Amino acid sequence: MFKQISILGSGLLGASLAMSIHHAKIAQSIIIWARRKETVDLCSSKAWCQHGEENLEKSVQGSNLVIICTPVETIGSIVEQIAPYLEKGTLVTDVGSVKNQICLDCEKSMGSSEGVFIGSHPMAGSEKSGMEFASKELVNGKSCIITPMRDDPVDQIQKLEEFWKALKMNVFQFSPREHDRAAAYFSHLPHLLASCLSRHLDTQDVNWKKISGNGLKDTTRIAEGDPQLWQQIFQMNKNKILTAIADFEKSLLEFKELLKGENKNELQSYLKIGSNFRKELDK
Amino acid sequence: MFKQISILGSGLLGASLAMSIHHAKIAQSIIIWARRKETVDLCSSKAWCQHGEENLEKSVQGSNLVIICTPVETIGSIVEQIAPYLEKGTLVTDVGSVKNQICLDCEKSMGSSEGVFIGSHPMAGSEKSGMEFASKELVNGKSCIITPMRDDPVDQIQKLEEFWKALKMNVFQFSPREHDRAAAYFSHLPHLLASCLSRHLDTQDVNWKKISGNGLKDTTRIAEGDPQLWQQIFQMNKNKILTAIADFEKSLLEFKELLKGENKNELQSYLKIGSNFRKELDK
Repeated sequence: MFKQISILGSGLLGASLAMSIHHAKIAQSIIIWARRKETVDLCSSKAWCQHGEENLEKSVQGSNLVIICTPVETIGSIVEQIAPYLEKGTLVTDVGSVKNQICLDCEKSMGSSEGVFIGSHPMAGSEKSGMEFASKELVNGKSCIITPMRDDPVDQIQKLEEFWKALKMNVFQFSPREHDRAAAYFSHLPHLLASCLSRHLDTQDVNWKKISGNGLKDTTRIAEGDPQLWQQIFQMNKNKILTAIADFEKSLLEFKELLKGENKNELQSYLKIGSNFRKELDK
Repeated sequence: MFKQISILGSGLLGASLAMSIHHAKIAQSIIIWARRKETVDLCSSKAWCQHGEENLEKSVQGSNLVIICTPVETIGSIVEQIAPYLEKGTLVTDVGSVKNQICLDCEKSMGSSEGVFIGSHPMAGSEKSGMEFASKELVNGKSCIITPMRDDPVDQIQKLEEFWKALKMNVFQFSPREHDRAAAYFSHLPHLLASCLSRHLDTQDVNWKKISGNGLKDTTRIAEGDPQLWQQIFQMNKNKILTAIADFEKSLLEFKELLKGENKNELQSYLKIGSNFRKELDK
């Protein structure tokens, strides 16, 4: 499917993608770029990396597909740096959890380049980070949102879609702006609530931790995620997240009113809607 | 360890306890009381139930230990009904997620009885309910809070502690009031946030569900729990829960202020405290 794929960044997602691509045999060669020499050497020693590279410009030369797997704040400047070195028709994508600003920045940077940038968001995060938790199964069966802009060539959009499908992902298209609105509610809000709850419980009596069951563990699991990565994601999608929080606060207020009142049936109905919503998520 | 144990209620926890007690061989005989004839017959057919019983008074006669595994609102009246039929020295406990009101009510009901009531809260709930999800492993390795009152006999407290330990639970003692304060923060608050989030997301664009990964699934899993059971738990611990929510809202406000501001380090520090708290929970 691809002569050569470059993966920039070798964290959880970068390394997992290299493993999946290697396993699915959809590239003749996989190049991995990393910032640190030891990481480059480690990658070079793996079956899923034909060549580790420290030099960003060199790492993309001769590739048909470049996947940027670095923290969201760095994606714009990486695309700016690699743009002049891309071959004609090279498809560049990323794996960032925020899309609008990244897609606008990258489209601008690609202006005079031979390549095309189309954003991706494979929904395969984990509370764990780093290559040591990487797995060829990480993305298998998960959703991947691709976020083409109005003028992106249809054949490139199709190529990107086929790439993620070859890794057994379920691919959906959203505009970058719509992606960010939806992600604020369905991804960033759950994460920040888990973080706020964990932050909050940390201030309580240590002895009370004995009263923590699987419910608390599930509810707060994602709060373990890398604070630096998430600070960047939250700040990049700040306005939409603040709207989502304000909306959530209305639901919390409604819960409080029902709790204060003595109408059992209304509180049960409220909980039932949430229960049904959750059951549907598993279907 | 016990000649005869009665389990009142055959839902997830009642049936799981019968299985564990049977497996651990700590009772010569297990009696199960259920409201409906079909359930009584179903229980009678199981290896972990020597006798299914529809009559509440009969179900406790001749037992040394009675465990009430019915919804929290019903526990007080069940204890009132069985109190006159208990043998001398019979220990009665429950599995309710709220303790103060239950313990006060039950102590009062037991006044002229031959038995002793001491509350328990095995932290082994699940988003699933009903006998079909029961398992002898459900309580294994989990925490169990027991909540003796000031005048409870030491040998009975010890007996209750040994019972839960025989089922491989980690047993801790809290006063009923302290239990409810702690549970409001560490159990009820996580649950209600999961419910509010699910309730809230249900009002959003259905198409946005495509942007739901494992983070959202983990965060909302407990919202699937039985709405009726949880409405009762929330309302029985109303005042402490309202305090816990008000406290949580301060943490959420702090998050919003940090997000609005441009100080990356402060937001990262906030997230890091939550991340560390969560890591500690797994230890």
